[in-house]
Amino acid sequence: MLFPSLLLSAAASAGAAAAQGVSTYVNPAVPTGTPIPANYTGPLRPQVHYSPPTGFMNDPNGMFYLNGVFHLYYQYNPTGLGAGNQHWGHATSKDGYTWENQPIALFPPEEKQYVFSGSVVVDTNNTSGFFPNQTNGVVAIFTLARYNEDGSGGPQTQAIAYSHDEGYTFQYYAQNPVVDSTSSQFRDPKVIRFEDHWAMVVAYSQEFALGIFTSTDLKKWTWASNFTNHGLLGAQYECPNLVKMPVRDRESGEVVDEKYVITLSYFIGDFNGTHFNTLDAATRLTDFAKDNYAAQFFYGVEGNQISLGWASNWQYAQQVPTGNNEGWRSAMTLPRASYLTKAPRIGWTMVDEIYDTKSIMGDSLATKTMGNGSVTVDYADVASNALYIEANVTGIDVAKATSFSTLNLTFTSPSSGESLRSGFYFGGDNPFFVDRGQLRGFDNVFFTDKFSVADVYYDSSADKTASWRVQAVIDRSMYEPLTMVNVAARDLPAGAKVSVAVWALKSTWAGQANKQGTVVGNVTTTSKRHMIYEGVSRHNE
Amino acid sequence: MLFPSLLLSAAASAGAAAAQGVSTYVNPAVPTGTPIPANYTGPLRPQVHYSPPTGFMNDPNGMFYLNGVFHLYYQYNPTGLGAGNQHWGHATSKDGYTWENQPIALFPPEEKQYVFSGSVVVDTNNTSGFFPNQTNGVVAIFTLARYNEDGSGGPQTQAIAYSHDEGYTFQYYAQNPVVDSTSSQFRDPKVIRFEDHWAMVVAYSQEFALGIFTSTDLKKWTWASNFTNHGLLGAQYECPNLVKMPVRDRESGEVVDEKYVITLSYFIGDFNGTHFNTLDAATRLTDFAKDNYAAQFFYGVEGNQISLGWASNWQYAQQVPTGNNEGWRSAMTLPRASYLTKAPRIGWTMVDEIYDTKSIMGDSLATKTMGNGSVTVDYADVASNALYIEANVTGIDVAKATSFSTLNLTFTSPSSGESLRSGFYFGGDNPFFVDRGQLRGFDNVFFTDKFSVADVYYDSSADKTASWRVQAVIDRSMYEPLTMVNVAARDLPAGAKVSVAVWALKSTWAGQANKQGTVVGNVTTTSKRHMIYEGVSRHNE
Repeated sequence: MLFPSLLLSAAASAGAAAAQGVSTYVNPAVPTGTPIPANYTGPLRPQVHYSPPTGFMNDPNGMFYLNGVFHLYYQYNPTGLGAGNQHWGHATSKDGYTWENQPIALFPPEEKQYVFSGSVVVDTNNTSGFFPNQTNGVVAIFTLARYNEDGSGGPQTQAIAYSHDEGYTFQYYAQNPVVDSTSSQFRDPKVIRFEDHWAMVVAYSQEFALGIFTSTDLKKWTWASNFTNHGLLGAQYECPNLVKMPVRDRESGEVVDEKYVITLSYFIGDFNGTHFNTLDAATRLTDFAKDNYAAQFFYGVEGNQISLGWASNWQYAQQVPTGNNEGWRSAMTLPRASYLTKAPRIGWTMVDEIYDTKSIMGDSLATKTMGNGSVTVDYADVASNALYIEANVTGIDVAKATSFSTLNLTFTSPSSGESLRSGFYFGGDNPFFVDRGQLRGFDNVFFTDKFSVADVYYDSSADKTASWRVQAVIDRSMYEPLTMVNVAARDLPAGAKVSVAVWALKSTWAGQANKQGTVVGNVTTTSKRHMIYEGVSRHNE
Repeated sequence: MLFPSLLLSAAASAGAAAAQGVSTYVNPAVPTGTPIPANYTGPLRPQVHYSPPTGFMNDPNGMFYLNGVFHLYYQYNPTGLGAGNQHWGHATSKDGYTWENQPIALFPPEEKQYVFSGSVVVDTNNTSGFFPNQTNGVVAIFTLARYNEDGSGGPQTQAIAYSHDEGYTFQYYAQNPVVDSTSSQFRDPKVIRFEDHWAMVVAYSQEFALGIFTSTDLKKWTWASNFTNHGLLGAQYECPNLVKMPVRDRESGEVVDEKYVITLSYFIGDFNGTHFNTLDAATRLTDFAKDNYAAQFFYGVEGNQISLGWASNWQYAQQVPTGNNEGWRSAMTLPRASYLTKAPRIGWTMVDEIYDTKSIMGDSLATKTMGNGSVTVDYADVASNALYIEANVTGIDVAKATSFSTLNLTFTSPSSGESLRSGFYFGGDNPFFVDRGQLRGFDNVFFTDKFSVADVYYDSSADKTASWRVQAVIDRSMYEPLTMVNVAARDLPAGAKVSVAVWALKSTWAGQANKQGTVVGNVTTTSKRHMIYEGVSRHNE
């Protein structure tokens, strides 16, 4: 993660006392050993996406899956509504949607050395030596970023911390850093297990290079290779991922191979434990709009790989109105399940599907099978304001689709006149678009209204017809809730069939709120965590 | 070029008679041997960009420079306001800005076989045998695209035509095609001279591959290699370029090497006459917004390479209001001069500069040197409504630039309230943005309002300060002309200096209009062209 130096500087100066050589700095305004309570009922609060209780959140970190629990950590400023004072916030979920807030997991080791992005592994075989009597030991590998008194960046080094309680509490390794550096632009280690060793990708961000390091014990790391200057360089490289992913046959869905994926944009290749070689020279993007940054894959997932990202970006994350209105900023994307396949024409591609939503499905509001036509649903009485919508279009005669053949998905607010439009064009270059320009409440030069992407489809069957599917989740996020949805198919060629389903979604937060509407998070293990935190000195005490 | 099948089909059916085996089909509605007269004074007409006299224009084609004249051909439907019925329109210019309309250069060889994109070379040494007594023989290499009765695409083949009069009139080669094919997705040949032979890049568009072919005589072509699956694949590959470009030292500006460039997005590499090898795996984009497509480099230019592109895209080119209001659609970008250099951090990069504007510069409206501050100019009395603006920012202390350090360039219309905003942020990820969301007159789901790009800059001097420059041209293009411009520098670090210059631009069309306001184009050589066109049969005569 990167953030503008001014904001960091302001945040850094909020800490009053100087470092005194102890191992962890806890700002007196930051609670330890207890989750931060919060109200999740506000009109801007997403109901099926994760957002922090209060304060400012950015990149997801350290994500792992163990014993049926997804662990999400996140870059967290608990004392402000902009970036700075970075901690690792923590939340857990059994279904990938319903997140229980946990106490902050990692605090700055010193007053001006923040905990930046990183990853977590499960050290099943105790390669680290931290876990002599455990197979569920957890090690976090992350960047410690030092800041100077004037707010400018000091060295960024890679450090580790270990947890004996499956990731709820951590202790810093006494011999940090494990990868030293004098650079202020060297960060975001992501570690995976490769056969007999650990492999790390880490960004030399200003050089548009990823370093690949190896280790047998997570403590001593050896440089193995660099992966440089691939894809769209942008402003810098950050938050790389390295993940093994199944390759599935496009027709049967069966796993036929496995490949590794590096994500920045994304690159598919072979990995031999030390070197990554791309299969081709294409640059592939997972998304076409602005609100998916620094996505990370959960460590410890078998089969299709599960990830989520930060549903914002540095252009306007610190300006969105949730901050002043409700005291929090930023949400995560929904979880996605991903695999690789070879598609006609486009070749190697990563397929991202919304992770299984069954746990949050509410009432079915509409199902309809039609040719051209439309379905309109008034969902004003869905308490969450959140919906799941799926439309499957089959039997499209590709040669007869024209530039007027469309499937449009439109949400409107009869009370305010606001709307959110999206749709697919089956003719021409097959653009899919989203237009959020008719929503109000936020004026910012970077808050782009219209996004589109060429979404290649093709005849895939003997009869030269194609099929196409859209899955959409809409969540609460604006002043005047949108309450009407219309799914309309127009000018599709004869023979095309459209099936539409609209479902209400349950709020993932409503069930966690007490009678006062407050989500308190996990307080059941407080005593255990207090024991751990007894070892933490507060500078200001 | 590609266009939606429905529109093509409609256009194709406009031709009444069936092909009769003659060499050229001329629709009776299309003038031969004379330019199409037009009025260029309309409120939507660009005054320093090229737009066609009437009808629909898309990709630039066949561009070359010979004896002091730039030749611009373009994909042209002279009988409609949408794509279809493709001819090669033609215009010439001595300065790259002031374009004189010429008679249409290439007509469909048959009623349902259109002339798609391609390129032109000067066959100085008569390698083709077409020019026994000339050193200025011109050969066009292009795609002939056949369409079936139902509007679906037939084979696309590569063909040639030759000109004895430096590109004003052409004759089809009798043994076309020169590269045969049964594919409906094989197009847009771009030919360059490489040492002892001709080299062609041509798109297998649906396969995301470029074929490289070689020839000694422009008639017989041999496949040499493919360049496949590079960069952002998008919907398909189209309109590739292959061009040799000087490499300049970033500081001195001196030419230190030369490399070849393939453009789709763009790739920098070495070319040995048959194979192209990229220098790295990066995907580089020339532009960050939507209105630059299918740019082509002029053949025959020494030193910095000059190009222009289609200032539109297939998402809304056929809907823009110039069609219904003024009877024409689409404009070209301004010409750019390009070279390569190695920049700090970002490495290999192509620098595009606005081609020398001296011939169109009007009055100086403002010059000012300042620190933080602003310049406002009322240009309501500039007849063209077109301006050239340059701002140079020097001495920026990069470490002290914050996310509030900006240089903004804003155009407004006091009468309508419309505005066009752009600006650069010197802190954070250094985004440069353009916001056209406050302009009215066109509502389309693909007409994106806000664009931004990370525009890396860096300290480049011993004193750790940086400099940054913007050159902007604004042209007439909206109902209520914008008449005020403000250039404002805010919160720049101490020591930064901003120099701003605002110039009126002269209309390139006004000087060509007769007393009735009509631009008639080049009619001085009509007799010569009539002689050539006597050989053309009209099916409907």
